[in-house]
Amino acid sequence: MANKNGFYAQSGGVTAVINASACGLIQTARKHHQQIGKIYAGRNGILGALQEELIDTSLESDQDIDNLQYTPGGAFGSARYKLKSFEENQKEYKRLIEVFKAHNIGYFFYNGGGDSMDTALKVSQIGKKMNFPITSVGIPKTVDNDLPITDTCPGFGSVAKYIAVSTHEASLDVLSMAETSTKVFILEVMGRHAGWIAAASGLIANQENEPPHIILFPEVPFEKKNFLKYVDKSVKDNGYCVIVASEGARYKNGKFLADAGTKDSFGHKQLGGVAPIIASIVKDSLGYKYHYAIADYLQRSARHLASETDLKQAYSVGEAAVKIAIKGEKSKMVTIDRVSDKPYKWKIGSVPLAEVANNEKMMPKEFITKNGFGITDACKTYMLPLIKGEAYPSYKNGLPVFAKLKNKLVEKRLNKKFMV
Amino acid sequence: MANKNGFYAQSGGVTAVINASACGLIQTARKHHQQIGKIYAGRNGILGALQEELIDTSLESDQDIDNLQYTPGGAFGSARYKLKSFEENQKEYKRLIEVFKAHNIGYFFYNGGGDSMDTALKVSQIGKKMNFPITSVGIPKTVDNDLPITDTCPGFGSVAKYIAVSTHEASLDVLSMAETSTKVFILEVMGRHAGWIAAASGLIANQENEPPHIILFPEVPFEKKNFLKYVDKSVKDNGYCVIVASEGARYKNGKFLADAGTKDSFGHKQLGGVAPIIASIVKDSLGYKYHYAIADYLQRSARHLASETDLKQAYSVGEAAVKIAIKGEKSKMVTIDRVSDKPYKWKIGSVPLAEVANNEKMMPKEFITKNGFGITDACKTYMLPLIKGEAYPSYKNGLPVFAKLKNKLVEKRLNKKFMV
Repeated sequence: MANKNGFYAQSGGVTAVINASACGLIQTARKHHQQIGKIYAGRNGILGALQEELIDTSLESDQDIDNLQYTPGGAFGSARYKLKSFEENQKEYKRLIEVFKAHNIGYFFYNGGGDSMDTALKVSQIGKKMNFPITSVGIPKTVDNDLPITDTCPGFGSVAKYIAVSTHEASLDVLSMAETSTKVFILEVMGRHAGWIAAASGLIANQENEPPHIILFPEVPFEKKNFLKYVDKSVKDNGYCVIVASEGARYKNGKFLADAGTKDSFGHKQLGGVAPIIASIVKDSLGYKYHYAIADYLQRSARHLASETDLKQAYSVGEAAVKIAIKGEKSKMVTIDRVSDKPYKWKIGSVPLAEVANNEKMMPKEFITKNGFGITDACKTYMLPLIKGEAYPSYKNGLPVFAKLKNKLVEKRLNKKFMV
Repeated sequence: MANKNGFYAQSGGVTAVINASACGLIQTARKHHQQIGKIYAGRNGILGALQEELIDTSLESDQDIDNLQYTPGGAFGSARYKLKSFEENQKEYKRLIEVFKAHNIGYFFYNGGGDSMDTALKVSQIGKKMNFPITSVGIPKTVDNDLPITDTCPGFGSVAKYIAVSTHEASLDVLSMAETSTKVFILEVMGRHAGWIAAASGLIANQENEPPHIILFPEVPFEKKNFLKYVDKSVKDNGYCVIVASEGARYKNGKFLADAGTKDSFGHKQLGGVAPIIASIVKDSLGYKYHYAIADYLQRSARHLASETDLKQAYSVGEAAVKIAIKGEKSKMVTIDRVSDKPYKWKIGSVPLAEVANNEKMMPKEFITKNGFGITDACKTYMLPLIKGEAYPSYKNGLPVFAKLKNKLVEKRLNKKFMV
């Protein structure tokens, strides 16, 4: 019987460097063809396994696989799809095993965040229960940086770099116009539960009074009066105020600022960002002219400004997943372990999936300044190394050259269709 | 008597490369110190002249002046301040001449858009009327690319590159998630009157059905029914739809989409972007899950992704302004003249200020596709060369190194304060 094949899937929100993990995994598997067969990638993540839509990555050229490193998004498609528990939906797990059996798949590589590590864990358990041995390895990925145990999550360093640089650039813009124009600028960034991304903007401030003047973390309850006091002080002292707001900024009672019940002129509920709400609060109380930007997907797909450190780590976790798998270690997630701060050194490690599944890591208290609006030196020591280095894609005629895969599906072997 | 000094001011919205024009101007003036004295920069643009707040650029090191090329924003401060006509406000013009006399200023360099060219023209006229000879030279700058006669405006090429690359990256993100998540993505870009910036997103599409699927130009009246038909078709055909919208997108009657009379739960009027309005229209009629980004200042300050072509042109117009001035040409604006398309060649020219003042250049009809939602090959031929080349700033510890000037003011010589 041929070597067992591997199944690889991207899960949840994609990042600027998730494809670098795919690249590391596929290139390493190709080097170890004596231990591991083909790598099949799920078309649209785990849905590809359920629907038997398996992309045969062996049909892609070495060059195209290498180009994955420079390409944002999820090259094989990702999915927001969480498997239910075995008790709630046995059918799904049975189907996965059927598909894996049909295609001689013995390795399950799942590239995602906390929810995905839960899925990877369940797959490994069900393999045991159904007497179908499968080696399940989790590969960390999330711009939110909220996985526990691993020192950081691939994807975060690049979004952090993008937000730090963009905040710096926009701050210079606002500063130069503040005398006669915009005095308050708000940048809305991702982070529904944890403020890691917003925190990254604080990396550009070296002295008090330097932007960003206010960072709003989900971890720190929003107090309007105190907030307005700081905005006003910043405008009076510095001529302007730059605010970086997590989308998850919330009141003490847990209610999101963004959930303001806004309606348009037709009475339709507006699903809003937090930035326009903050802008309204500032305008109504202080009257300052404002502008706001909502980075949204631009931030997590900004491959053009990826962190070299992040890229290397993203590649390495993909590479390590294969090595862990062929060593026969089971139910592990690859981790990035910090060896030292100065100089920054890291190595690859691993942790049982059970320890990371469904477990979010918030910003620790000692990373947030006493007033709740900034980051501490401890936070900078942690975060600065993660944005270090520039790993530019190559360009042709002014535009980046991204990988374009064939994404050819393996012929189906099962008769049944599976409805998700 | 010493050589006449030059006054330089940045005007209106800043760009990623306006400081490169300042750099070109100051470096060139330093080389021609036998013909031109010091360059004084207006603190906050023309306000600096009115308030006698003149920054002595001769106190800045060669290195710091050189670093201006890599620094976004307006290094001396800019202003949104339009001088009234001579008849309406003689006082202001008289004050300018007083300040120029007091500081032996014989050259007026004004770096801005259409309104600013009007001011430069008026200054040159008033010089004649008041028998104070002043050489007024306009230096083009605007991300909007709407100055006439010059082939392009420094600042535009960089914002165009940023929007093209960001649209490409975000499109890959949306594509990879569309099966289970966001199907419609909207990117709001600048351009209140002209659609040049939105058009730049079209540079990434090489085939039909490639993103962006819909571009909304201010030049093309928005028809809701037709728009929704295209959105739906794109989602059905491609699985997703990427829309790039000019902030100035408007209905046939001229009303901006962004002016939707939106109110928040307190009844306050929401000054909105166009993106959430379009999102609402899509959601209400088609029900597709959407996301939107508002690039706002991020786009015009994105020095980290400046176009090399744009940077060179921005430098050159500053350099040329000094050369024109010391040749004694009066009341001119520097232009960028296209010599050929393929290969792209350009040279510096000039045009009387009277021909460019208050005169906007819209997207020509032949640059917009018949359905009104895309750009033609003619537009690509025009625009692609403008985004060519990457001119990265240098980085230290993961962050760009931007110039920090001393911005020391010249001692005042006039007793009176001037209130603006």
